[in-house]
Amino acid sequence: MEPETVSTSEFSFSHRLRVRWAEVDRQGIVFNGHYLTYFDVGMTEYLRAIGIPYPDGLLEYDGDLFLVKATVEYKSPALYDDELDCHVRIGRIGTSSLQFLFELRRGHELLVKGENIYVNAHPVTRTPAPVHKAVRDAVIAFERVAPQ
Amino acid sequence: MEPETVSTSEFSFSHRLRVRWAEVDRQGIVFNGHYLTYFDVGMTEYLRAIGIPYPDGLLEYDGDLFLVKATVEYKSPALYDDELDCHVRIGRIGTSSLQFLFELRRGHELLVKGENIYVNAHPVTRTPAPVHKAVRDAVIAFERVAPQ
Amino acid sequence: MEPETVSTSEFSFSHRLRVRWAEVDRQGIVFNGHYLTYFDVGMTEYLRAIGIPYPDGLLEYDGDLFLVKATVEYKSPALYDDELDCHVRIGRIGTSSLQFLFELRRGHELLVKGENIYVNAHPVTRTPAPVHKAVRDAVIAFERVAPQ
Amino acid sequence: MEPETVSTSEFSFSHRLRVRWAEVDRQGIVFNGHYLTYFDVGMTEYLRAIGIPYPDGLLEYDGDLFLVKATVEYKSPALYDDELDCHVRIGRIGTSSLQFLFELRRGHELLVKGENIYVNAHPVTRTPAPVHKAVRDAVIAFERVAPQ
Repeated sequence: MEPETVSTSEFSFSHRLRVRWAEVDRQGIVFNGHYLTYFDVGMTEYLRAIGIPYPDGLLEYDGDLFLVKATVEYKSPALYDDELDCHVRIGRIGTSSLQFLFELRRGHELLVKGENIYVNAHPVTRTPAPVHKAVRDAVIAFERVAPQ
Repeated sequence: MEPETVSTSEFSFSHRLRVRWAEVDRQGIVFNGHYLTYFDVGMTEYLRAIGIPYPDGLLEYDGDLFLVKATVEYKSPALYDDELDCHVRIGRIGTSSLQFLFELRRGHELLVKGENIYVNAHPVTRTPAPVHKAVRDAVIAFERVAPQ
Repeated sequence: MEPETVSTSEFSFSHRLRVRWAEVDRQGIVFNGHYLTYFDVGMTEYLRAIGIPYPDGLLEYDGDLFLVKATVEYKSPALYDDELDCHVRIGRIGTSSLQFLFELRRGHELLVKGENIYVNAHPVTRTPAPVHKAVRDAVIAFERVAPQ
Repeated sequence: MEPETVSTSEFSFSHRLRVRWAEVDRQGIVFNGHYLTYFDVGMTEYLRAIGIPYPDGLLEYDGDLFLVKATVEYKSPALYDDELDCHVRIGRIGTSSLQFLFELRRGHELLVKGENIYVNAHPVTRTPAPVHKAVRDAVIAFERVAPQ
């Protein structure tokens, strides 16, 4: 498993975090499920950066995000006390869905890649609802690479 | 730190759980904060056993429990895959508070002791409220050692 | 998102667990990353069931498992205190990799599906190593549906 | 439960962190066990600040820290997305033990107080060992209020 050092130029946003002792397992590496927590933190900070803080910025438009699919590729493990950059972008905006892409890097080294697909749903009924134009516009204005 | 093997006869209840890989840190032992999760699971199962399932059984009487103080004594670490018995009892019932006592054991060996003090509060206003007579009676009927 | 109630007949194994309070978020549902913990518990119990307890049963053959890819499909959320059955099987055994498949169900209702691909690696060098014949044989003897 | 707004002038160190979605429970508040994770992060950053990074800075002197007692007082709950300051100081240095004191604040408001007592032990034998003079000196040089 060679370190990948692909450019991250397609990402407009990243958030730094540090691996906690409680997140590292007996193998000395971050437990696999915690990367989804890191991605969740990354998504939260991304949404703050585009001016739609989670969840209030979405609730204003009667929207909330529910994860429907997560895919995580583990290239190289993160270790205790590592400083990691969680790169986040929205790769696709559907009528009522959003695809978030994540790259977790230690310096230039790519450790973990992720793709989370969220459905936008009404916060109470939890039935799918169109992504509000204000959200869509904020994403498009922010992203370096236009979402599909 | 000698293993304590005190009798647990004052406990009317215990719940078995197994240490998960994700709960064990790089020292090969359960991370200290997770014992509070074990105690929380123990409290949940205790309340189910006395017929006041958490939280609905309390909400029925306009009550909910909020932790105000936790004390944990770490005697000996729990290890990955250990089967543990979480012994639970209520040691004291105040007007609007409950003291839960916990002993986490691997077989006879006492690993961790805990004391959690909860205030009973109104679920919406979150202001202290008397422990309902039905709850008090259920505890007293269940406990081997009468709570103070 | 209709509940799926597909047969689980292709699974030889399941493990029951109960959702903890600490695992449920403000939406009242299990946080998405915790399903990977449930799958990890399921994998551990599966390996115990086939007689190769994790990790010692693998270390005996100079093997350990490292996750390289996880895919999780969220159909319907698990709620606090739900009793869930984590169905586990091995769908594919490669030269040095294992594909685990998971279905998390509440009764017949399918909540979450998962696929974890592990590479078998030497525990110290962490370089890929062939899955030992004893492990392969134990899996094949146990599985109702022959792994590919 | 009135907010306490006691001065933190006795603390030489604080570390800021933000509450994650995954740390908040169905009551909308941080699950009680996670405060021990926050304190652990605080301790890590404190040790980095005094030049004895955990654990390598201690291992150099054949020391490691094992928690023997934790006491947590919950005054007011932390909420999702709160920015918190984890104030950390060492209140007492015994022959082979260290008392860490924690205050978790949102602005001036004191939310949670903690006291963790660690024993310094040999990393392999895990038997108590004197706190090394270099560690003791680094603490004393750093602390505003001399540890007892």
